[in-house]
Amino acid sequence: MRHDALVSRETKKDDTIVDIKGIKVGGNNIVIIAGPCAIEDKEQYLETAVTLKRLGAHMLRGGAFKPRTSPYTFQGLAEEGLKIIAEAKELTEMPVVTEVLDTRDVELIARYCDVIQVGSRNMQNFVLLKEVGRSSLPVLLKRGLSATIEEWLMAAEYIMAEGNHNVILCERGIRTFETYTRNTLDISAIPAVKHLSHLPVIVDPSHAAGRWGMVGPLSRSAVAAGADGLLIEVHPEPELALCDGGQSLTPENFAKLMKEVRAVAAAVDRTCDKEEKVSCQNKINMVR
Amino acid sequence: MRHDALVSRETKKDDTIVDIKGIKVGGNNIVIIAGPCAIEDKEQYLETAVTLKRLGAHMLRGGAFKPRTSPYTFQGLAEEGLKIIAEAKELTEMPVVTEVLDTRDVELIARYCDVIQVGSRNMQNFVLLKEVGRSSLPVLLKRGLSATIEEWLMAAEYIMAEGNHNVILCERGIRTFETYTRNTLDISAIPAVKHLSHLPVIVDPSHAAGRWGMVGPLSRSAVAAGADGLLIEVHPEPELALCDGGQSLTPENFAKLMKEVRAVAAAVDRTCDKEEKVSCQNKINMVR
Amino acid sequence: MRHDALVSRETKKDDTIVDIKGIKVGGNNIVIIAGPCAIEDKEQYLETAVTLKRLGAHMLRGGAFKPRTSPYTFQGLAEEGLKIIAEAKELTEMPVVTEVLDTRDVELIARYCDVIQVGSRNMQNFVLLKEVGRSSLPVLLKRGLSATIEEWLMAAEYIMAEGNHNVILCERGIRTFETYTRNTLDISAIPAVKHLSHLPVIVDPSHAAGRWGMVGPLSRSAVAAGADGLLIEVHPEPELALCDGGQSLTPENFAKLMKEVRAVAAAVDRTCDKEEKVSCQNKINMVR
Amino acid sequence: MRHDALVSRETKKDDTIVDIKGIKVGGNNIVIIAGPCAIEDKEQYLETAVTLKRLGAHMLRGGAFKPRTSPYTFQGLAEEGLKIIAEAKELTEMPVVTEVLDTRDVELIARYCDVIQVGSRNMQNFVLLKEVGRSSLPVLLKRGLSATIEEWLMAAEYIMAEGNHNVILCERGIRTFETYTRNTLDISAIPAVKHLSHLPVIVDPSHAAGRWGMVGPLSRSAVAAGADGLLIEVHPEPELALCDGGQSLTPENFAKLMKEVRAVAAAVDRTCDKEEKVSCQNKINMVR
Repeated sequence: MRHDALVSRETKKDDTIVDIKGIKVGGNNIVIIAGPCAIEDKEQYLETAVTLKRLGAHMLRGGAFKPRTSPYTFQGLAEEGLKIIAEAKELTEMPVVTEVLDTRDVELIARYCDVIQVGSRNMQNFVLLKEVGRSSLPVLLKRGLSATIEEWLMAAEYIMAEGNHNVILCERGIRTFETYTRNTLDISAIPAVKHLSHLPVIVDPSHAAGRWGMVGPLSRSAVAAGADGLLIEVHPEPELALCDGGQSLTPENFAKLMKEVRAVAAAVDRTCDKEEKVSCQNKINMVR
Repeated sequence: MRHDALVSRETKKDDTIVDIKGIKVGGNNIVIIAGPCAIEDKEQYLETAVTLKRLGAHMLRGGAFKPRTSPYTFQGLAEEGLKIIAEAKELTEMPVVTEVLDTRDVELIARYCDVIQVGSRNMQNFVLLKEVGRSSLPVLLKRGLSATIEEWLMAAEYIMAEGNHNVILCERGIRTFETYTRNTLDISAIPAVKHLSHLPVIVDPSHAAGRWGMVGPLSRSAVAAGADGLLIEVHPEPELALCDGGQSLTPENFAKLMKEVRAVAAAVDRTCDKEEKVSCQNKINMVR
Repeated sequence: MRHDALVSRETKKDDTIVDIKGIKVGGNNIVIIAGPCAIEDKEQYLETAVTLKRLGAHMLRGGAFKPRTSPYTFQGLAEEGLKIIAEAKELTEMPVVTEVLDTRDVELIARYCDVIQVGSRNMQNFVLLKEVGRSSLPVLLKRGLSATIEEWLMAAEYIMAEGNHNVILCERGIRTFETYTRNTLDISAIPAVKHLSHLPVIVDPSHAAGRWGMVGPLSRSAVAAGADGLLIEVHPEPELALCDGGQSLTPENFAKLMKEVRAVAAAVDRTCDKEEKVSCQNKINMVR
Repeated sequence: MRHDALVSRETKKDDTIVDIKGIKVGGNNIVIIAGPCAIEDKEQYLETAVTLKRLGAHMLRGGAFKPRTSPYTFQGLAEEGLKIIAEAKELTEMPVVTEVLDTRDVELIARYCDVIQVGSRNMQNFVLLKEVGRSSLPVLLKRGLSATIEEWLMAAEYIMAEGNHNVILCERGIRTFETYTRNTLDISAIPAVKHLSHLPVIVDPSHAAGRWGMVGPLSRSAVAAGADGLLIEVHPEPELALCDGGQSLTPENFAKLMKEVRAVAAAVDRTCDKEEKVSCQNKINMVR
């Protein structure tokens, strides 16, 4: 990596903190982004959103455009889905993140959402990286399935080189020979990124594991390793989910996870405060 | 894989032959596509094109839009490059193939080129797959760095599902632990694809090896394993190339390669005839 | 995996606790095994051993027979090394673990040591597995570089099938495409093994990372994910080590690590008590 | 790799030819080693051996000690199997190769066989490498499942450093993310080994593919890439084989393979002569 890369710790010594309407990713507080893989149904999504807020999530996730291996599986509700996620945002006052697949959708998504996600399959879709680099929205950049840490940072560099410095990296498992898990969570990537770059890094244990029973242990390990946040799939009825049900937590299990994550956060001198407190502080911030 | 997938051998028993202005990919003749990684300079490119035709290549390759790991390396000449490749096409009467990175460039490329390439990094850029699926141009679909054979075929399915059935698959090495080569050429993918699908499959030994000295052995092995063609990087002065010089053959080495490939093709009851002969036969075909 | 395998959680519901002279691996206390990669010098090793005991390690590690990629690098002190490790054991009253490479050395090692280690390269050396299976010593079985979790458990089965049920599994990183770290620590293997088997599982972050700066974060993440212990390389002068210096902690950094590990252990309702306490409790246990 | 390594092409420029009772591995003739994975039954093995000789194989393979993932599957007939393979050798006058698992069996195997095989799982069993290095028998050294080319060559160095320079390398597929094949045949390893070392290198397409239908294409590609020989599993009734039936050719398919291999060998200016001719020449050699 070039020493003068924008992404490099050598270029900027202090940790970058991405501020999403008051939710600070990269600071002392561990940020929890939760929600179903795909937005399937308005009522269900809104209900889940309210539950997640109550249980301590800070941000909402939900896919409106879904990248699927087969063209014949559910591809998402598109703008219809964006409207639902925007409604959930209104209702809960939580910022929302959704994935972009098409350069031509960046503006549309910016109208409804607060963070734009570039998924694993598009990590080296350089045209898309440049396009979100010209957006004013913070970008959640997932690591590609077989991307080295350096390639991942260079993908972030594409975004930053266009002027958008609000990049959040997200480790979500890499492809290896092991098939027991869907992918292999590369926990070492957390300290590696922290060493090489100033950007915040979060972890998606749901996609890495592909098994809901592992989301708890992997979330705890991510926080212990220094992750700045977690991206967790939660679905009220995982067995009925149109997408990735097997790796989704029920709200009950999510509540248990939050408790565990807070304990580990405290052990590494960090917090994972409830949304209420953060909101409070936001109001204070807004008053200043 | 669904038994009724368009890509499946069960759906269509006979081999698909993609006809590119008379050059038939998937038939008995092994098709050689050659050229430099990137179009850098008009005179140099035209000269190389003429040399390649003389040495027996059937089609020309050349990148105008280059996907590069770092945003600070040469990104290609864009439309300027397309104009040069089109001029080479005029001059040599060889069809030309170039890579598309942006959905918004599909029409532009179609104006200048005969085959549109979707590169490894975009193999699961489903929006781009759908866009080229709506194009009338044949598509050269490279396998993703860590894509399974099934995911690769499903990527082809995205293109075919939009109505474009002229898809040529291209194996170009997968990412493994071995670092001696740039990637690991998955030679087994050739018989696997031939078994599972009716689509033609070619091999890019240059990107797989990352070392020009291996291009010969890998090309011979690809033809022996049943590949329908080869995609070979050739540069008049590899040591001065702006991109991938280390894996480029000189014209002299390309001439040697052609001889070797023809011998192996004959051993597996196929041909790798000179462009002249093919043209001849094309004219005959056109008369019929 | 066969449901009736000895290694299977279905065969034995309760966690196996391997008792090594009072040190219990697989119980509530996280067990720390520390020491240099290879035994190089008697005085240095004894001094390091005393330091490690003072800093809270429970067991000592040290290689007398070293598996090295090249036949021309330091291969260990052999029996000379075993004598030194036995002396350290006398001095510190800590149990010791060392690696076996040769079936013909099992008895020799049993004379000096308390736990016998089968290394990654020998995980499917079935003859060696059977031999240690006939030993009365507990076995530390490292996961092979490219072994699936199932193959690893089946290797343990080879040991257990010979009658030795005191097997401790050790995750130490798998081989992937990523080269920033020496190997990729498969943190998911911890919950996977806990789910599939009743055997205790520990983690070797030193060999996984290959970089001492990552040993802390990886150790914390291992404990958070549910590991029963850690295997840590410590060397008084890492830069002078004959083997694996780059991944060795100094005693100062080991002291820091112990503090961090205790905090995370507490967060997951476990302990990582100092050796003194454990010894104390052992004496009490022995009195009962 | 050290420039002065015994294995290095820099140390010895000319190709090493390993002479096994007149069968020369590493010369111009492609050597075919064939037989069932495991020796199961005397009559069946002898009959298969005679068939293989008739069909043009040069050497026989057969396992008496089988390394199996589970301790509960067929482990081979041990010395009983060695006696059968020795009888086949008498009957057919073909040299025989078998795998060693235990240092203590090297002498036993030497009494019955002509080449001793070190399998993938033992490629870094350095004690075994040293032991076969002290044997007078040629060694067939398979590449480890996740061994780099350099580690593989260093394993050969262990054998050579003990005085045994008759080492034949065998590529048999590496472990990658792709699961369609049992392993991924690293065809690039052939030219890589030829470049780095003077040792002969053969290919085992049967274990690489794990599917008999791919053995033909992979064998052809191996010969085209420069391999000095092939190790092919053949079983009279693959569906009844106790081990690896799915990847075994019937004698009929083996006959077809031989024809294909000879054609490709000729295309790369090599031969794959029938055993009879070679025997003839051997007799002539013996007269000199």
